[in-house]
Amino acid sequence: MAEPTKILGESPHIINVGLTAFSHAVRASGAGATDLDWRPPADGDRGLGLLVAELADDAEDSLGSRIASANAEAMNLVLAARPRLVDVRTALEVVPGLTDRMILHAGPPIEWADMCGPMRGAVIGAILLEGWASTPEAAENLARTGEIRMDPCHHHSTVGPMAGVLSPSMPVSVVEDESSGRQAFASLNEGLGKVLRYGAFDEEVMTRLRWMSDILGPTLSDTLRAGDPIDLRAITSQALQMGDECHNRNVASTSLLARQLAPRMVRATDVDRAAEVLSFLRDNDHFYLNLSMAACKLAMDAAAGIPGSTLVTAMARNGVEFGLRISGMGDEWFTAPVSVADGLYFPGYGPDDANPDMGDSSITETFGIGGFAMAGAPSIARFVGGTPAQAVGYTREMGRITLTKNNGLTLPPLDFEGVPTGIDVRRVVETRVTPVINTGIAHREAGVGQIGAGIARAPLACFDQALRRLAETLHSKDQT
Amino acid sequence: MAEPTKILGESPHIINVGLTAFSHAVRASGAGATDLDWRPPADGDRGLGLLVAELADDAEDSLGSRIASANAEAMNLVLAARPRLVDVRTALEVVPGLTDRMILHAGPPIEWADMCGPMRGAVIGAILLEGWASTPEAAENLARTGEIRMDPCHHHSTVGPMAGVLSPSMPVSVVEDESSGRQAFASLNEGLGKVLRYGAFDEEVMTRLRWMSDILGPTLSDTLRAGDPIDLRAITSQALQMGDECHNRNVASTSLLARQLAPRMVRATDVDRAAEVLSFLRDNDHFYLNLSMAACKLAMDAAAGIPGSTLVTAMARNGVEFGLRISGMGDEWFTAPVSVADGLYFPGYGPDDANPDMGDSSITETFGIGGFAMAGAPSIARFVGGTPAQAVGYTREMGRITLTKNNGLTLPPLDFEGVPTGIDVRRVVETRVTPVINTGIAHREAGVGQIGAGIARAPLACFDQALRRLAETLHSKDQT
Repeated sequence: MAEPTKILGESPHIINVGLTAFSHAVRASGAGATDLDWRPPADGDRGLGLLVAELADDAEDSLGSRIASANAEAMNLVLAARPRLVDVRTALEVVPGLTDRMILHAGPPIEWADMCGPMRGAVIGAILLEGWASTPEAAENLARTGEIRMDPCHHHSTVGPMAGVLSPSMPVSVVEDESSGRQAFASLNEGLGKVLRYGAFDEEVMTRLRWMSDILGPTLSDTLRAGDPIDLRAITSQALQMGDECHNRNVASTSLLARQLAPRMVRATDVDRAAEVLSFLRDNDHFYLNLSMAACKLAMDAAAGIPGSTLVTAMARNGVEFGLRISGMGDEWFTAPVSVADGLYFPGYGPDDANPDMGDSSITETFGIGGFAMAGAPSIARFVGGTPAQAVGYTREMGRITLTKNNGLTLPPLDFEGVPTGIDVRRVVETRVTPVINTGIAHREAGVGQIGAGIARAPLACFDQALRRLAETLHSKDQT
Repeated sequence: MAEPTKILGESPHIINVGLTAFSHAVRASGAGATDLDWRPPADGDRGLGLLVAELADDAEDSLGSRIASANAEAMNLVLAARPRLVDVRTALEVVPGLTDRMILHAGPPIEWADMCGPMRGAVIGAILLEGWASTPEAAENLARTGEIRMDPCHHHSTVGPMAGVLSPSMPVSVVEDESSGRQAFASLNEGLGKVLRYGAFDEEVMTRLRWMSDILGPTLSDTLRAGDPIDLRAITSQALQMGDECHNRNVASTSLLARQLAPRMVRATDVDRAAEVLSFLRDNDHFYLNLSMAACKLAMDAAAGIPGSTLVTAMARNGVEFGLRISGMGDEWFTAPVSVADGLYFPGYGPDDANPDMGDSSITETFGIGGFAMAGAPSIARFVGGTPAQAVGYTREMGRITLTKNNGLTLPPLDFEGVPTGIDVRRVVETRVTPVINTGIAHREAGVGQIGAGIARAPLACFDQALRRLAETLHSKDQT
């Protein structure tokens, strides 16, 4: 917003609404001018503008108040979720609907033929890991012929970062809501460097994945079952006081988790396993990311399918398309092409090498952390090329498109204000302010891995679509 | 500072230097006034004011430039220190000059007869722990008759929080400078609740202290010796990005340390010891405090005894007096009565119950963290009753009395500016801005424990004394 001119003194002073250029002449004549950064709702799109007015909480029509109460109910459910890490199990055992010869991936639905390079790489890696093929070529062939079924993680109460590829033998965290017993799942984080989620599948990657299935998963399971569930909301809350936003920065949350698990792990397993797993947790500053994602998925799923609610319940990217779900439209995806994140690249790489944005990790922003909590994580702003002031700016901006503040998750730099929580699709459509997403950047080719990190914006088109569809549904219900 | 009036328009405008009251009449007459918050150097004390002018870096006299180069040398030594945790040993084995039937305490020298309640309680506890007496009465008698020698921790390259009581059988951390091999020591942190350092000595306290000698110390020793030294500067630096100021808030630093130690502890000791020690580290969010203190002591000792340097090398309180050391005066203490910290009390307690400020922990502020790094720890500001904006204010204010910024220890909310480091006694005397110290508040009676936390200010009198004495020394050298 333009810096407002101070209104002082006796000379004439005008308020200029809209284009700043209009006030140049006023100022040149010696008078004062205050520029108001105003734009018409929905950027002047008449149809959308009328829709936003019709569906507003305070609209004369009854639709607005129905939406308001649906959203209130949805937000209560989101804020009431108490995600706790109860176990780590093999995906096939616990993930609902996951069967043999099936692979889950990030984002909205996509066929092998349309998948981007790094997602293909991750699928090939998963097929090799499962032993369904013994060479990358054979794996690719299996995938192409449709012999392996592919499905979004989100269709199975599951989330995965970047390619988000999950196959039946992989270990997953089991995150459970304290009161309802509902569950959500996520793969375990592999760390940085060459990893499956960025599309790498060489021997280093395979060796680590086998170790995660054979040692990491069972050891965490033994450790978790030996004591009380781990309160993930409490860890996220503490970590937000410690510079994490629990998407791109997870060092505090991972440290707090490791410190909680260490003493009981020592008694729950043998020396070699405990030492190996504690070393892995020591060296992987992102271990908490996937748990953070599962906790957010659990909270947002609580609010899915409430008729009339304009709350965004999922944002996910498959590297080709961005997918959006809103509560009032249940499982329906609204999609639009996804772009490359704006950020900093590792030496030797640039935007031309980047794959468009990818992963289910934007479930953190959907819940109100990650980019939405950037004010509390100035180091992340710096990591992606920004400043602490910009970090505060992102959080403030997200306050314009969200329904409430989550007072259980507070931000010290904003005087302990709660994080902006619950994206209202109406506000995105009206303001044209799109959700900000902290993200990693993958190389566009399979097998290379991460080449940077940055900030992505959700594409407007799917918000417009979602609001139009919701309005249609509400109108057709009105007529029946 | 008063909010400056905007200087705009045609009416007369004056700059008012000093008392705001002078500008009231100007404003009443319709003219503008800008208040400048100016005070005469040394609050108008002519002798001190002249001294400050004579010893300024840019004074015509050669003294100023000698002081400037002495301070530059001192700061180089402080900033070059690389404290690493190399071992945990029994105090008697490693603390220089510590002998049998000797007890170390916090702050400048003090006799039993003058000690405050909580320090007496801690001394009694230490005598009982050592088995030199079997009842508190007998212990008190031993202390009173002078059969137990008492000496400040600071005289033995050691620091201790609150009462700072250390006896020969207690375990101490051994912190070593990477290049010089110099060492500093600190007791191990007992946690919160009833603890010796706040003057409690009941069976709960004694049991914990015996466990610390028998299990905690040896287990940490085995763990540390099994691997590389732990880089404390790196941990402090990371923790400052995570909301710690490494004096009153140590949750990030303790978590990072525990996460580093856990995997090697598993292999270095047996299951029971590892589980017990990792549980203790899990439950004690202040474990890092004493290590932070030893690291700061090591850095400040590096700069002690440089002729002409006005750098403050130690600030310490014994619950009765505040003690100050400056580099150019070596081991000499400059003391003044210490007051009660300004802060928040636990339910049921108030300022009347409080003991005056106590402990060697202000070595952290001497080094430039703790209260000096408060901008990075808004949660601590809140814990002691302040706001994030006040936290930033404290750090900025400390910038007025320090020689430099430590760019190895940066503060995210200040755009990653380094912490203000190296208190210059001249600037304190001139500006009357006194060092801010984050502190815990002990009950004034032995045996009760902590009753609050707050912010203390170092008393001006000892800074004035120190500068006068340094000037005398420099003048007398000039004459020889």
